[in-house]
Amino acid sequence: MASSLLTSSKFSPSPSPSPFPSPKSSPFLRPSLRFPPSKLPSFPSFPSYSLPQSPLISSSLNPSPPSPLRRPHYIPNHIPDPNYVRVFDTTLRDGEQSPGATLTSKEKLDIARQLARLGVDIIEAGFPAASKDDFEAVKVIAKEVGNAEDENGYVPVICGLSRCNEKDIKAAWEAVKYAKRPRIHTFIATSGIHLEYKLRKSKAEVLDIARSMVRYARSLGCNDVEFSPEDAGRSDREFLYEILGEVIKAGATTLNIPDTVGITVPGEFGQLIADIKANTPGIENVVISTHCQNDLGLSTGNTLAGACAGARQVEVTINGIGERAGNASLEEVVMAIKCRGEHVLGGLYTGINTQHIVMASKMVEEYTGLHVQPHKAIVGANAFAHESGIHQDGMLKHKGTYEIMSPEDIGLERSNEAGIVLGKLSGRHALRDRLKELGYELDDEQLGNIFWLFKAVAEQKKRVTDADLIALVSDEVFQPEVVWKLDDLQVTCGTLGLSTATIKLIDASGTEHVACSVGTGPVDSAYKAVDLITKEPVTLLEYSMNSVTEGIDAIATTRVVVRAEKDHLSTHALTGETVHRTFSGTGAGMDIVVSSVKAYIGALNKMLGFKEQNQTKALPEPLPVSV
Amino acid sequence: MASSLLTSSKFSPSPSPSPFPSPKSSPFLRPSLRFPPSKLPSFPSFPSYSLPQSPLISSSLNPSPPSPLRRPHYIPNHIPDPNYVRVFDTTLRDGEQSPGATLTSKEKLDIARQLARLGVDIIEAGFPAASKDDFEAVKVIAKEVGNAEDENGYVPVICGLSRCNEKDIKAAWEAVKYAKRPRIHTFIATSGIHLEYKLRKSKAEVLDIARSMVRYARSLGCNDVEFSPEDAGRSDREFLYEILGEVIKAGATTLNIPDTVGITVPGEFGQLIADIKANTPGIENVVISTHCQNDLGLSTGNTLAGACAGARQVEVTINGIGERAGNASLEEVVMAIKCRGEHVLGGLYTGINTQHIVMASKMVEEYTGLHVQPHKAIVGANAFAHESGIHQDGMLKHKGTYEIMSPEDIGLERSNEAGIVLGKLSGRHALRDRLKELGYELDDEQLGNIFWLFKAVAEQKKRVTDADLIALVSDEVFQPEVVWKLDDLQVTCGTLGLSTATIKLIDASGTEHVACSVGTGPVDSAYKAVDLITKEPVTLLEYSMNSVTEGIDAIATTRVVVRAEKDHLSTHALTGETVHRTFSGTGAGMDIVVSSVKAYIGALNKMLGFKEQNQTKALPEPLPVSV
Repeated sequence: MASSLLTSSKFSPSPSPSPFPSPKSSPFLRPSLRFPPSKLPSFPSFPSYSLPQSPLISSSLNPSPPSPLRRPHYIPNHIPDPNYVRVFDTTLRDGEQSPGATLTSKEKLDIARQLARLGVDIIEAGFPAASKDDFEAVKVIAKEVGNAEDENGYVPVICGLSRCNEKDIKAAWEAVKYAKRPRIHTFIATSGIHLEYKLRKSKAEVLDIARSMVRYARSLGCNDVEFSPEDAGRSDREFLYEILGEVIKAGATTLNIPDTVGITVPGEFGQLIADIKANTPGIENVVISTHCQNDLGLSTGNTLAGACAGARQVEVTINGIGERAGNASLEEVVMAIKCRGEHVLGGLYTGINTQHIVMASKMVEEYTGLHVQPHKAIVGANAFAHESGIHQDGMLKHKGTYEIMSPEDIGLERSNEAGIVLGKLSGRHALRDRLKELGYELDDEQLGNIFWLFKAVAEQKKRVTDADLIALVSDEVFQPEVVWKLDDLQVTCGTLGLSTATIKLIDASGTEHVACSVGTGPVDSAYKAVDLITKEPVTLLEYSMNSVTEGIDAIATTRVVVRAEKDHLSTHALTGETVHRTFSGTGAGMDIVVSSVKAYIGALNKMLGFKEQNQTKALPEPLPVSV
Repeated sequence: MASSLLTSSKFSPSPSPSPFPSPKSSPFLRPSLRFPPSKLPSFPSFPSYSLPQSPLISSSLNPSPPSPLRRPHYIPNHIPDPNYVRVFDTTLRDGEQSPGATLTSKEKLDIARQLARLGVDIIEAGFPAASKDDFEAVKVIAKEVGNAEDENGYVPVICGLSRCNEKDIKAAWEAVKYAKRPRIHTFIATSGIHLEYKLRKSKAEVLDIARSMVRYARSLGCNDVEFSPEDAGRSDREFLYEILGEVIKAGATTLNIPDTVGITVPGEFGQLIADIKANTPGIENVVISTHCQNDLGLSTGNTLAGACAGARQVEVTINGIGERAGNASLEEVVMAIKCRGEHVLGGLYTGINTQHIVMASKMVEEYTGLHVQPHKAIVGANAFAHESGIHQDGMLKHKGTYEIMSPEDIGLERSNEAGIVLGKLSGRHALRDRLKELGYELDDEQLGNIFWLFKAVAEQKKRVTDADLIALVSDEVFQPEVVWKLDDLQVTCGTLGLSTATIKLIDASGTEHVACSVGTGPVDSAYKAVDLITKEPVTLLEYSMNSVTEGIDAIATTRVVVRAEKDHLSTHALTGETVHRTFSGTGAGMDIVVSSVKAYIGALNKMLGFKEQNQTKALPEPLPVSV
């Protein structure tokens, strides 16, 4: 019987993948059964989480038939299929609030397109009132991604966050209204501690603000309004029922229940959702949502518990990024529902096309500079390590002995099975095919640039690995607009301690600039030489490097995060404080000093792209272009 | 009422910290209440997880009195206090199985000492049958850490893993028998898929092997035997009850229930434990344990669910390391129990002295080379990021608004509150004090070495930060025995592409060796020059670098992982396959090329320490000393 466990969960094959820029391939078929009906799992029926009484928890011994279900038609306050769970991605809003994770408008647009490719139901594209940059980014996403409907009628809802005040809500509406399905998400804290120390308001005052602001959002013409009682996990229950009941009357369509400080455990959070479902007047007319922070490492468990208790929207981020310990991660929640939804989660399913997970994870890692640890579930480098070790394939008599999903499910190729090795004789076609297998669908111009980089590496390395290719793509595809460009660099260093760098940069007009500097090491001296030319006051916050390939002649990818020391201010959504933005940059190359300088210049270019935008009052559509 | 939530959970103050090498300070007082009895939390009483019927789940509205409880006396098969949860750390066994995480005996001993300082109940020190190195490491830990009883009678149990065969069990006993409290942990797979594809045995055969091997372990004189049915999460329930009942009769004292492939969700895993508790004959005479892998990101939730359902031992690793997506992490499980045990987990508590968590996390990160992502719960760099941002302290009106535990609870100083900045005029005493506040208790020799490194940095930097100090300590304290030592290095590199390195190394006898090489970058050329001298065939698997401080003149820490291309074989505990060992090395310095070379030489030294041991047949006690 056990062999039935081995078949990797098969998503129905997607239509042929779309070209890179347009989000077309989003099959949202229900994953097929992992256990054929005649081979039932050995787990007996049991009450999932603490909700044996919930009608949503059907017996795991009676799985619903494996007929592929389409994503239900989108109605703001109701989901036609009671088992469908909406995925609300907040990588661009909550994720971007992480220290150092600032994204440019172009990067946000790239990520939003990838989220559409994944098939997320709602993209929270930002906090439009935070700054002009944030506003523009949300607007661009609403216009482009929010209107790219596919052949099945799928197009993501584009959502903007706002505090409970007219200015924020107006800004959110002005940014999202261009989307086919715009949503305003407004929030106000409801816990005693937040009322007392952050808001300094009474319950009655907060109730009144929430009600009138939801009504205001509806009055602007927005028929899809989400409301969150911030810090719900620590809020008084009766007050929660009351305020939620009032905002439903005022027109809210989704009620999101955030465990803002990540303090709850799964049974407790599930009970919170169940209690709200049982006690809030009018709750049957809205969709309940979870938003679980990960401070105790329980965000995925809490999110699933919430779904089992009746929540039908889950708020998640790619790689689980976010403030402090981050949020529930999309890949964990989605793959748990995919692997276990049918049998232990009462038949729940999502519309996510999981084969795009790896690419989404890499893109977010590159753009935010927030690296993923090797033992991160689903997307960590070791998550499928049984596949890459030496002597392992032969030793493991069956993959399923230690594997509950297959790498292909999330878009990861088994490189040791692919049998393709590129070398200096490989052509453009072979390169394009291999990159496609790795999840990268590039346009002709991007492919052309990568091809010349590939040839340069192949001249020096006999065997160009997949990891080399990924590093090259990252360096080419994930770069900001160019303001400064590295032309030449020459460095001497060593234990003597007088590192010296000479550098030649080219500015946007094509003019060459040369400078030299001494420093405490080769990177220090090179960065000081760059500073002499660019004259931009920044502080280096982080510097890291990963060689991505085996062998000493590897391509190293360097990542830096810098903080601008003038301008580039933003407003923090939750605390309301003003913060200096930080910018990350990456560079790849076979010389780590060269890649370090490319990363630094990348971060400066990203920052200068922002500055340019701040200085220009009336921006032409749609992307910030520097110089 | 909410303000009561703010008081950080107060662990009773520990006795004055012990000097670095001996594990003395292990207060195991129960954490005091987070809510004063008059200010009850607003969560109503509800059934935790799916086990409302369990007598262990007391109402969260009736917390037991806050009297500090001592760690119960150790009896292998019984815990006198029904609310006490034993912490079984398997960082040295399951954690060390991660790719690239190979530890030397000295490193294992250091980690074991730190685990004793944390107060873990059981240290799984290794898999003695894997190789001679593993055997010796477990034996040294059993002798040293396993006999260092503190004034309260605490000494960790030292456990060795073995497959279900006489040779493995004998090896485990020979290694652990020197400890005051030795334990043998034996396992055999029980799931259908493992029986069919891995073991190729019938249930009856497996039952017979398990019974006779537990009996054999007892016959050697070991009165503390743990048994695990591997892949229990996918095993047939009735067979589980039967085999567990039989091994209890044969003398097992702890039954560990592993979710080997990380497939379960919390309610399901809790139910598995509850079912075993309800249906296994003789279960009342043993301790039930959890062992949850993290493939779906649910290991912490599953572990807590298991504890709520009656498990009173939790198997965890520092930083959650382990194969694939790793294990439940000690810090998440322990802090969740500390923060919520009293109120939502039925009064559960552990004996962990949480102030040693940060140091343990850093040590394991350094030694294994497995970095922790910035948004890792509890120990990630951003986990308490609200404390370090600009403008944040003033803006946040109360720490508790976004903080459920305080950094001090886990041994992390709030650097922006400490107000101590070291500079070149700072003396040895100030340095020692600051390091102590950072969690490092060094002996005089170590302090002396650090002090000279500190002075060298202070000559070049006006302000030596905590992060600089931590990098220096890592470089000094966490280094392997010296075989090769870097004397001088000189490198030129740049966009021209002809990187050239000249290097001078000193061998153990004091002889100088000089070589030069060209390479594709400065590190490549320097490593090739090292190879010309050392003549050790290795493959570089990973190379990464983190600058740990703000500013371009930061101290960078480089980490490399190399694989030995001859010798250094080991047996994998679960799969039985033979694998090549890999070794990590780190180096810190203001010149990244110099720190890269130091890291590479560190990894080579670590490997040579192993080789030396393999070649010496009869080893003198207790540590492998190279050359």
